[in-house]
Amino acid sequence: MTLPSLARYLPILDWGRHYDRGQFTGDAVAAVIVTIMLIPQSLAYALLAGMPPEAGIYASIAPILLYAIFGTSRALAVGPVAVVSLMTAAAVGNIAESGTAGYVAAALTLAFLSGAMLLALGLFRLGFLANFLSHPVIAGFITASGILIAASQLKHILGIKGEGHTLVEIVSSLLAHLGETSFITLAIGAAATAFLFWVRKGLKPLLRRIGLGPRMADIGAKTGPVLAIVATTLVVWAFDLGARGVAIVGEVPQSLPPLTLPSFSPALISQLFVPALLISIIGFVESISVAQTLAAKKRQRIDPDQELIGLGAANMGAAFSGGFPVTGGFSRSVVNYDAGAETPAAGAFTALGLSLAALFLTPLIHFLPKATLAATIIVAVLSLVDFSILKRAWAFSRADFAAVSATILLTLVFGVEVGVTAGVVTSILVHLYKTSRPHMAVVGRVPGTEHFRNVLRHEVETQPHVLTLRVDESLYFPNARYLEDQLSAYAADKPELTDVVLMFPAVNEIDLSALESLEAINTRLHDAGIRLHLSEVKGPVMDRLKRSHFLDELTGEVFLSQHEAACKLARATPTSGESEDPPEMVRLSAG
Amino acid sequence: MTLPSLARYLPILDWGRHYDRGQFTGDAVAAVIVTIMLIPQSLAYALLAGMPPEAGIYASIAPILLYAIFGTSRALAVGPVAVVSLMTAAAVGNIAESGTAGYVAAALTLAFLSGAMLLALGLFRLGFLANFLSHPVIAGFITASGILIAASQLKHILGIKGEGHTLVEIVSSLLAHLGETSFITLAIGAAATAFLFWVRKGLKPLLRRIGLGPRMADIGAKTGPVLAIVATTLVVWAFDLGARGVAIVGEVPQSLPPLTLPSFSPALISQLFVPALLISIIGFVESISVAQTLAAKKRQRIDPDQELIGLGAANMGAAFSGGFPVTGGFSRSVVNYDAGAETPAAGAFTALGLSLAALFLTPLIHFLPKATLAATIIVAVLSLVDFSILKRAWAFSRADFAAVSATILLTLVFGVEVGVTAGVVTSILVHLYKTSRPHMAVVGRVPGTEHFRNVLRHEVETQPHVLTLRVDESLYFPNARYLEDQLSAYAADKPELTDVVLMFPAVNEIDLSALESLEAINTRLHDAGIRLHLSEVKGPVMDRLKRSHFLDELTGEVFLSQHEAACKLARATPTSGESEDPPEMVRLSAG
Repeated sequence: MTLPSLARYLPILDWGRHYDRGQFTGDAVAAVIVTIMLIPQSLAYALLAGMPPEAGIYASIAPILLYAIFGTSRALAVGPVAVVSLMTAAAVGNIAESGTAGYVAAALTLAFLSGAMLLALGLFRLGFLANFLSHPVIAGFITASGILIAASQLKHILGIKGEGHTLVEIVSSLLAHLGETSFITLAIGAAATAFLFWVRKGLKPLLRRIGLGPRMADIGAKTGPVLAIVATTLVVWAFDLGARGVAIVGEVPQSLPPLTLPSFSPALISQLFVPALLISIIGFVESISVAQTLAAKKRQRIDPDQELIGLGAANMGAAFSGGFPVTGGFSRSVVNYDAGAETPAAGAFTALGLSLAALFLTPLIHFLPKATLAATIIVAVLSLVDFSILKRAWAFSRADFAAVSATILLTLVFGVEVGVTAGVVTSILVHLYKTSRPHMAVVGRVPGTEHFRNVLRHEVETQPHVLTLRVDESLYFPNARYLEDQLSAYAADKPELTDVVLMFPAVNEIDLSALESLEAINTRLHDAGIRLHLSEVKGPVMDRLKRSHFLDELTGEVFLSQHEAACKLARATPTSGESEDPPEMVRLSAG
Repeated sequence: MTLPSLARYLPILDWGRHYDRGQFTGDAVAAVIVTIMLIPQSLAYALLAGMPPEAGIYASIAPILLYAIFGTSRALAVGPVAVVSLMTAAAVGNIAESGTAGYVAAALTLAFLSGAMLLALGLFRLGFLANFLSHPVIAGFITASGILIAASQLKHILGIKGEGHTLVEIVSSLLAHLGETSFITLAIGAAATAFLFWVRKGLKPLLRRIGLGPRMADIGAKTGPVLAIVATTLVVWAFDLGARGVAIVGEVPQSLPPLTLPSFSPALISQLFVPALLISIIGFVESISVAQTLAAKKRQRIDPDQELIGLGAANMGAAFSGGFPVTGGFSRSVVNYDAGAETPAAGAFTALGLSLAALFLTPLIHFLPKATLAATIIVAVLSLVDFSILKRAWAFSRADFAAVSATILLTLVFGVEVGVTAGVVTSILVHLYKTSRPHMAVVGRVPGTEHFRNVLRHEVETQPHVLTLRVDESLYFPNARYLEDQLSAYAADKPELTDVVLMFPAVNEIDLSALESLEAINTRLHDAGIRLHLSEVKGPVMDRLKRSHFLDELTGEVFLSQHEAACKLARATPTSGESEDPPEMVRLSAG
């Protein structure tokens, strides 16, 4: 393998050779800021995923390093994110109880499977599969997930037990345990939530007023979650609230990420296969759109297939170092970019910072209340909730609206896996439905021109013995029979008909079903004494038709332009006196 | 409800009012011939479905009557058919042992569910769903089913035990029991098979040679199966072969169809739901194509949604009269049509004939060997097996070939339900894959004309600052991101670019995902100092775009024709001296 081709799979060989001091400074500053931001976030998403808190930090170290080697985005920060953590909790929660060794093992296996799938999709260049997740479905899914995540964290704010992976389960479980509310926990949780909401809006202006520059104020505002954590931890420690019913993080091992082995039990793998696939695709789609948005600002290229490899390697890393499924996160990547990250080395420095945190800071979070982490999550995910997609979709098309609302509703009612699957299936069904009854227009000539337009929309000339039908859709199995139905209706209604011209300027594809329908139409029209012609057939479609016997059997002709067809067919009858410019007849027959 | 609107749901009100003596004669003659043909066929398909023999006759009586009232085809004959009987055996065989009361009850429930689904599809006018089963998939499925059916009947010819619903299961079960072969049974079965094959080819010419007219010879040839049944029954009776190991039909109740009640157990219904759906769709597709073929010969119309109601009623009838799932059969309908059936009354008379048979003929079939019925089935279904679809599909398109071969292979290896589902899924995935990387062409002007063609296929004029890209596919979620990728590649490669024109003559639809991609493209090109224009946007697509803010945000213009776009953009630069004919600029902005 030569260096350029190796560099395709190892982008680090490309940027690594030109690494300079300026880039180093940018990367190092960004890494410090991202590290400070990631400590609370990692702990919180571990809580959301049902994992021990240190797993969140471990899941940010090896993955971010591996992505730095294999990924193509220069600013993407990889680690645990909200939606993927929620999906992890839903998938693993079906298999084992949170807090058990089985739960952790299943999460490792989920990360391994997801990594293997992403690698496979990347190596086989199957990244296009992610396109089947349409924009509106993703928007709906993320909104619904945000609601589910926020609801699932309320139990930590209230200090009660709770469970469930659907809105109904979560809410009814909360209501059942509401009497057990720990008011001290609630006070801490509510205060942290209120503070964090204020941080989002009010901290930056405040920092500006006290004299910080815009960039520093921006960075300072990101430290809000750290402040909340420090303050509430101190309060719990000072008043020994852990003994008074406030759930705390507790003992956290002081160590670098351990070497772990996922379970390869076939039963476990078959249970986790579908969730892993959904996590891979959702994670990839989220990550690539963040990466592309940031790359566009500096005219850098993102290679989608190589991104799959980068994310696959990151998840593999998570599986073997005590983590759980990860992907490129939106907020951390934006912070990384804004803080001046120039290359993936920023990620490597972040990994270093987090390793130091795992070694030295973990004893300090013993008294950190879970309610604070829950508050961090709630404030973060509520910014994901955005129902405006419903309004946009409604205005633009009912079909897209159907897909979005199905996704939101089913995600809330039946959980993330059903929701996202339903979204994809609905998009596909809606598309098939739309194309199954394609737009077709009877056309006539705009007087004095060579243009042909819909008879219903324009004043045009037609002849009673010729029916010209423009088909505004590719012909393929969902609509093949519809064309048959339409043409037999026209043939039955018009006894004077002798020629039918099918105008195919917008037919981009004809499949075997449609070919068989065209053959049936040709035969049936022939039985009725009507010739079938085609006009304006595109090159690739004509090439395709030449591979069958259809053109030999066609009772009429194939015209390059509809103008030619009209002149030729008009000349053939005595009623017409228009054909002043006899065009050349073009008959393309099968090779 | 007025009479015309009632007649939409009850076609009998239409043809029934004009019924005359000529039609009666045609119908009555056809009914006699079809009855004679149906007696052996019904018994055989009951055997195939794992049902008691009389169930086959019952399944032909109420269904044919109900279809006569609700159906729109004048020649379709409804009853048990090979493929649906095979699917029934596969579905019910998973739930109960053939020969038990539970088996019969499950078959009734399957017919009920299938009837309810067909009625629902018809009432909600969802018949288009059947179009998702493409022609090649159906052809492949029927070929594979024919092989499975023939293989499943070999056990009766050999007189051994056998089971299984996939080719591997059936063959290995046959091999395991081969040592138990009953040679008397084999002799009868082989003789009947050979005779029936000869009947298909040789009986009609023989009848012509002995002086029968062509029509009578044709009808006489259809009595072959009856001859085989009479002869083998007599042999078994005369030599008491039932006592010597030849499996016989045995006691058959002498009665009209009984009133039966399907089971409504939720567990059973949920087990049978998917099989019932597949049976409904396969049955409908088979039936409607037979009905349309026969209707076309007399220029009659078939209403697909009303056909669903007719078939739904027929299956409901089967469920409440001791039958099992039914549909319109190819061979019986063709015989009915050829024998001169004029109206659905022919079906009613056939029902009468079969009722008489159920009352008076059943004692006569006590000694009928099952091997003869198996021979009837084998000879009938081998005519369904036709691998030429593979050759046609291969020549026409690899995508269709993939769908057909997946259907055939998976049906044989994993059974009918997996096979047909895989066929549908493969067709849809292949379509999505094809449209996910649409054909796009950079175009230029054919010198001296207003035509624009692919720069790779034609000698055309282009300008370095303008990129004109013709998109040969509707823009929707599977390909939205591809367009983004392509345009950022062009923009990165051409520093002199100032204008991009997207030519949309073949874009029949834009969905919300594609709209968001266009918005992203517009913004990103704007950041690069490039304007984005559209040309030749179709009316419905333009209407759709006006429902969004895209046209307000578009940095360039929307041109009615590409010629206009080229003239306008050429004038704007000093390098061009061609614009002798300044066209009117058209800027369509959002309402």
